[in-house]
Amino acid sequence: MLIKLLWPQAINLMIRYSNNTMNEQKILAIEAIKKKLMGKRIVYDEAFAIMDQIANFGLEDLFVAYFAASSFNKGFSADELFYLVKAMVETGNKLDFKGIVADKHSIGGMPGTRTTPIVTSIVAAAGYQIPKVSSRAITTPAGTADVMEVLCEVDFTIAEIKKIVNQVGGCIVWNGKLNIAPADDVIIRVEEPLSFESFDKIIVSILAKKIAMSSNQLLLDLPVGPTMKIKYVTDALKFKRKFVNLCHKFGITVKVDINHQLEPLGEGIGAALEARDVLKVLSQVPERSLRLESKSIKLASRLLDMCFLADNKADDGLRLAEHLLKSGKAEEKFREIIKAQRGDPDVKWHDIQLARHRLELKADKSGTISLVNNYHISALAKLLGAPIDRKAGLVLQKKIDEKVNRNDILIELYSESEQKLKEANESYKNLPIYIIN
Amino acid sequence: MLIKLLWPQAINLMIRYSNNTMNEQKILAIEAIKKKLMGKRIVYDEAFAIMDQIANFGLEDLFVAYFAASSFNKGFSADELFYLVKAMVETGNKLDFKGIVADKHSIGGMPGTRTTPIVTSIVAAAGYQIPKVSSRAITTPAGTADVMEVLCEVDFTIAEIKKIVNQVGGCIVWNGKLNIAPADDVIIRVEEPLSFESFDKIIVSILAKKIAMSSNQLLLDLPVGPTMKIKYVTDALKFKRKFVNLCHKFGITVKVDINHQLEPLGEGIGAALEARDVLKVLSQVPERSLRLESKSIKLASRLLDMCFLADNKADDGLRLAEHLLKSGKAEEKFREIIKAQRGDPDVKWHDIQLARHRLELKADKSGTISLVNNYHISALAKLLGAPIDRKAGLVLQKKIDEKVNRNDILIELYSESEQKLKEANESYKNLPIYIIN
Repeated sequence: MLIKLLWPQAINLMIRYSNNTMNEQKILAIEAIKKKLMGKRIVYDEAFAIMDQIANFGLEDLFVAYFAASSFNKGFSADELFYLVKAMVETGNKLDFKGIVADKHSIGGMPGTRTTPIVTSIVAAAGYQIPKVSSRAITTPAGTADVMEVLCEVDFTIAEIKKIVNQVGGCIVWNGKLNIAPADDVIIRVEEPLSFESFDKIIVSILAKKIAMSSNQLLLDLPVGPTMKIKYVTDALKFKRKFVNLCHKFGITVKVDINHQLEPLGEGIGAALEARDVLKVLSQVPERSLRLESKSIKLASRLLDMCFLADNKADDGLRLAEHLLKSGKAEEKFREIIKAQRGDPDVKWHDIQLARHRLELKADKSGTISLVNNYHISALAKLLGAPIDRKAGLVLQKKIDEKVNRNDILIELYSESEQKLKEANESYKNLPIYIIN
Repeated sequence: MLIKLLWPQAINLMIRYSNNTMNEQKILAIEAIKKKLMGKRIVYDEAFAIMDQIANFGLEDLFVAYFAASSFNKGFSADELFYLVKAMVETGNKLDFKGIVADKHSIGGMPGTRTTPIVTSIVAAAGYQIPKVSSRAITTPAGTADVMEVLCEVDFTIAEIKKIVNQVGGCIVWNGKLNIAPADDVIIRVEEPLSFESFDKIIVSILAKKIAMSSNQLLLDLPVGPTMKIKYVTDALKFKRKFVNLCHKFGITVKVDINHQLEPLGEGIGAALEARDVLKVLSQVPERSLRLESKSIKLASRLLDMCFLADNKADDGLRLAEHLLKSGKAEEKFREIIKAQRGDPDVKWHDIQLARHRLELKADKSGTISLVNNYHISALAKLLGAPIDRKAGLVLQKKIDEKVNRNDILIELYSESEQKLKEANESYKNLPIYIIN
């Protein structure tokens, strides 16, 4: 039940902003935002105006907030999603790679499950292009870009990225300054204080970035679980259907891997600790996380199978992924990428420094781990200084179903600040990670 | 189709704002806003937290925008409307008047139809309390407070208002600094750039201010028309039903006057010109607007009938309203109010100065007026300098169905700026007020 306005909007706005600060495109954008807020449909020109004003003309945050909020009303039709993605791509920079371009994306991934560098290395080692652009952490303990930055640079220009990918087949860089689907970054910043995002908005965000990177073989990792972004398989299936339909409209081949996840697969949480986990798997040292390895192989194998199909090649993704990892070829590729990104290609996992101060949390009773609280993992990591302090974080010593004895070490905490370490230690009572029964 | 967040919100917010800038009430408010955005229901404590944070703790505009946008999602239940109104009242100042307190409100009124000072004078002359607080114009050519300010002061403290009303029975003052339902002012400011408001939001706004003023006999003037805020009678009826139900929950007696309105009832548009129209009617000079008079009598008579009923008095509102106006008692009361508000009680309508520069717009053809465009009236008035220039505005010389000859004067334009007068003259081609057939 909505009222029409006393003023036709165009007149109103033109008069209000009559000293030429508002042009026709801005009026179109604002009117389109209002339409969405009132549950009406918009066309491509309107979607373009919104994205263009957000990306390139500094549309005020209030308007962006109203647009973000509008996705909670009646949502977007399939056509509107197409328009929004296209407009988001067209109002930013693009990287044009030819031929097969693989990509992998995880939605609302678990902390401490850094598969991207491993998958990228395997796929690039198989000879396929995989230009990964990743984000830094905002509200999580670490983003893939943060983890890579422990090992090499991640801030490159579009020309540099093209050069790196043409040279070594892959990259793992930061998307921050590339101006790829820039409207998305603005919207995410405005949504951040409420930390909300609609399904529709997530779909638009992911796809716009992928299309701008010319990705055409996309594997979407969709973990489901009580403490994940998506909690129910039915929701995951709805998401998948919408996502796949939209991919097809853009000519992108996509596979969606819906999987249950209850706890981190790696051991460390925090940029430095996760970089260690990645290097351990790639260099196949005995103390590596086998669960992180197996998840990475699974994702890489599915992505390779997609590439084979596009390439008219008869091969088995799983076989090749395992081979590339075991033979050291994936590690070799990872070191090539590190070198191309101006890092030390000879770095060993134990070269990576952790924070100076360390504290062990011990079990206050014996029993079996029945639950891992992923919220509390992130909360503690942030109390320790992550994501700003790259060396801060925590190591999980136990997994679900594991038996523990009283005084067993459960968690190691790392922080550059003794004060923070103390605070995290005190907070653990209220933010327990393990439920022991 | 919404996703749950990776983080439980409370933890997320507590950590993000861990340097004590965010307290529990703020977290509660933000979580409640998010609930509304996702189409869920909130309880009184949550409504209170939202209003309190907005009114008294400077909740950031972005959050306010998300709250405003949420009223476009599933709207509010009857209970929620009650909570929001109550919370809006409780988080601001109140004026406690005892006994019968009359009030009158117009929704999205027509420009140049300044009934409030006339109705207030009649009702106060009948011996009933009528403490009117009114707004200034933001996007319209004049608000009631602007019009009154041509004649006297309008900016008083709560104590002063009580004194004025106890002394003369009524007042017509500005609500701006009274801190009455202050959250409403903030929300309106944040909604302003999009110039939207939901029905629900309008109902909450009106009622909160009325309850804070202790009003218990309320007449709601609900003009309907193609260029009014409410365009269709069916919408007006829906609005009425919701409004009346909510009034009853607060123990307020209410009547809603749904009426068609196609053009301004007074002659002038702009503060000074409208003040002249008001004074002309109250002093019953022959050149007064009979239509403004008749509408004012109608509203006053209905409001008086309500007061009689509450007062167990057998009298006829129409008879008394007409008598008070014709006998000069309403004028006398108006001059008492002007005096109490530190104005010149002896002011005559022709004492009120208009802007220096004047221009006549003439008919370019003969025919009959078939339509008056109220949007364009406001647009032209604003081009002439209203609402900031109180003396600027325009006088409509013709009414719908009136016959005109080529070169008849249609409109007089007034402005302090010759440049603006010229611009308005040039703009008239694109903003015609009269359609002549």
